[in-house]
Amino acid sequence: VKFEINILGCGGAMPTRHRNPSAQLINIQEHYCLMDCGEGTQMQIRRFGLRMQRIETIFISHLHGDHYLGLPGLLQTMHLLGRTKEVTVVGPPQLEQLLTDHFKLASTKGLRFPIQYIKTQAKTAEVVFENKKFSVTSVPLKHKIATTGFVFREQEKPRRFIPSAAEEFSIPYYRIDGIKNGDDFIQEDGTVIPNKEMTLDPEPALAYAYMSDTAYKESIVEHITGVNALYHEASFTEENRKRAKETFHSTASDAAKIAAMAKVKHLYLGHFSARYKNTDGFVAEGRVHFEDLTICEDGMTITL
Amino acid sequence: VKFEINILGCGGAMPTRHRNPSAQLINIQEHYCLMDCGEGTQMQIRRFGLRMQRIETIFISHLHGDHYLGLPGLLQTMHLLGRTKEVTVVGPPQLEQLLTDHFKLASTKGLRFPIQYIKTQAKTAEVVFENKKFSVTSVPLKHKIATTGFVFREQEKPRRFIPSAAEEFSIPYYRIDGIKNGDDFIQEDGTVIPNKEMTLDPEPALAYAYMSDTAYKESIVEHITGVNALYHEASFTEENRKRAKETFHSTASDAAKIAAMAKVKHLYLGHFSARYKNTDGFVAEGRVHFEDLTICEDGMTITL
Repeated sequence: VKFEINILGCGGAMPTRHRNPSAQLINIQEHYCLMDCGEGTQMQIRRFGLRMQRIETIFISHLHGDHYLGLPGLLQTMHLLGRTKEVTVVGPPQLEQLLTDHFKLASTKGLRFPIQYIKTQAKTAEVVFENKKFSVTSVPLKHKIATTGFVFREQEKPRRFIPSAAEEFSIPYYRIDGIKNGDDFIQEDGTVIPNKEMTLDPEPALAYAYMSDTAYKESIVEHITGVNALYHEASFTEENRKRAKETFHSTASDAAKIAAMAKVKHLYLGHFSARYKNTDGFVAEGRVHFEDLTICEDGMTITL
Repeated sequence: VKFEINILGCGGAMPTRHRNPSAQLINIQEHYCLMDCGEGTQMQIRRFGLRMQRIETIFISHLHGDHYLGLPGLLQTMHLLGRTKEVTVVGPPQLEQLLTDHFKLASTKGLRFPIQYIKTQAKTAEVVFENKKFSVTSVPLKHKIATTGFVFREQEKPRRFIPSAAEEFSIPYYRIDGIKNGDDFIQEDGTVIPNKEMTLDPEPALAYAYMSDTAYKESIVEHITGVNALYHEASFTEENRKRAKETFHSTASDAAKIAAMAKVKHLYLGHFSARYKNTDGFVAEGRVHFEDLTICEDGMTITL
C-alpha cells in the first residue's frame, strides 16, 4: 500500500534553474493529492511523467504567488484534457474568488468538471478533509499572511487476518471483515476464538506533514509528533537569521529543532532562498539538531 | 544595431514537455520588450540565460491563461531582485485589476517599482507605445475574447554620415547630427555641399509582427505588409479545420496565406496544439502558400 510524495518544486519565492516554486504530488493509497501549486506545476507533472488527471484533492497553504499561481493553468489543462471528475480545492477563503475571476475574464463557459471548495482558517488546527483512507488536518503557521500547514494521516488500518485461521477454526468468509476489525469468533459449539489467535497487529498508519511557509513556531510540534516524514521549509541558514525574521521564514536549524521536538522519523528540507549556490550549509546547521535529514530536489520521490 | 527575438514559449493552450506557453523576449536596439507572458516565463528567461531586469515594456495579447499567467510571478521576482525601475504593461483593460488583486491578497506592501498601465482595445489598430527607437501598433485579432496582435516597427533611421566627409568639407562636429537628418552643409565661402555627398542612405527600419491568438483574418494584412518577420499562430493543420473554427484559431495554411498576401520577408509559426507529435504537417501545408517559413522552438533566436 503506497504512501509516496513526488517533489515537483522545492524552490523558494524566486525559482532557480534547478528548483521550481512549491508543489508536491502525494499518493496516499492511490488517492492523489496536490500539495501547493506554484507556477509551472503542470509542466513539472509532465516533465516527471506523472498523471495530472489522477489528482482528486488540491491543498493550498497560502496565497503567495509561489504557492498557487500554477493552479489556474493546471485546472485549465485538466479541462482541455477532457476531465469531468470533480476536484476538491482546500485553501484560503479568497482562492475561490481568484479562480472564478480568472475563468470569467478568460470567458471560459465553465470548466467541464465541478470544483468543490473547502475553506481553511489559520487560527486553530482542524480536520479539513477526511475519507476512509486518510484525514488531513490544517495547522496554523506563522507567516506574513494567513498560512496553514497540513498533516496527512492514514486512518487506522484493520488487523491483518491470518489466512490459515480460516480453515483451522472453520471461519465463514463473511465473518472475516468483522474479525479484521477486532471481533472474536464463536464456533458452532460455543468455543470462543480470541481475535489475537486469528489476526496480526495492523500495519502502522503512516503520516506526512507539510509545513511551509513558516517562521519557527513551537505550537506546530503537538500536531506533527511522530510523523514518518516532515517537510519543513528552510529558506535560510543562520547567516541570514535577520532576513528570516523579517520575512517570517525558518532557518535550517529552526526546522531541525521542530523535527527533534516532534520526534519525527525523517526531516525533509525545502523552499531554499535562491541566494544559496548549494545546500551544504543547510545540512550542516540542520544536523546539529536532527540527524535524519534530507535536502529536497525537484523530481525526488519520498516513500514512507 | 540589434533587433532580436528570443522565443521563450511557443506552445498552445496546453504546454508540452518541449513547448512552454506563449512568451517572447524582443530586443529592439537594446530596449527589451516581453511579448506575452505565459506560465513559466520567468523560469524560461533563467533557463536560456537572459536578463529579466532588462525588460522595460510588457505586451499582453489577451487574457487567456497561457498568455498572461506568468506575469504576477515575473513581477514578483523583479521585485525580489531589487528592481526600482518602472515597468510599462500594455494589455487588456482588466489586467491592472487582476494584478492589483493578486498583490493585495499576497499583502505585498507594494512592488518596489511602479507599473505604468496602457490599455489596449480590440476594435481598431492604434499606436499603443512609441519612443525614439520604435513604435508598437496594436492590431485587432479574431479570437474568443478581445485580443490584439502587435507590430514592432523601428523608427526611420538617420542617414549614415560618411566619416571622410568631415575632413573633406571641413564640417564641424556639431553639424553632423543635422546632416544625418538630411541637412545640406554651407561652407564658409558660401558653397553648398548637398547632403547626398556627405551621407549614405539609412539602414532600413525593421519591423516584426506578432499575431496570436487569432482565426484567419484578412484585415491583419494591411497592418503587417512587408514586415521582416511575422510570427503567426498556427494551432492546427487542415485535418482539424473544424476545431480551428470552433476555437478561433488558425491552421498553418491560414497563417501562410496571410504571410503571402502581406508579402512579409519570413514567416514563423507557433502556438501548436499539444495533440501534434511533430510539426511536419505544419511545414507541408504552410509551404503550399508561403515558402520562407520556420517552425518555432523554445529557446530559438530570430535575428532581423
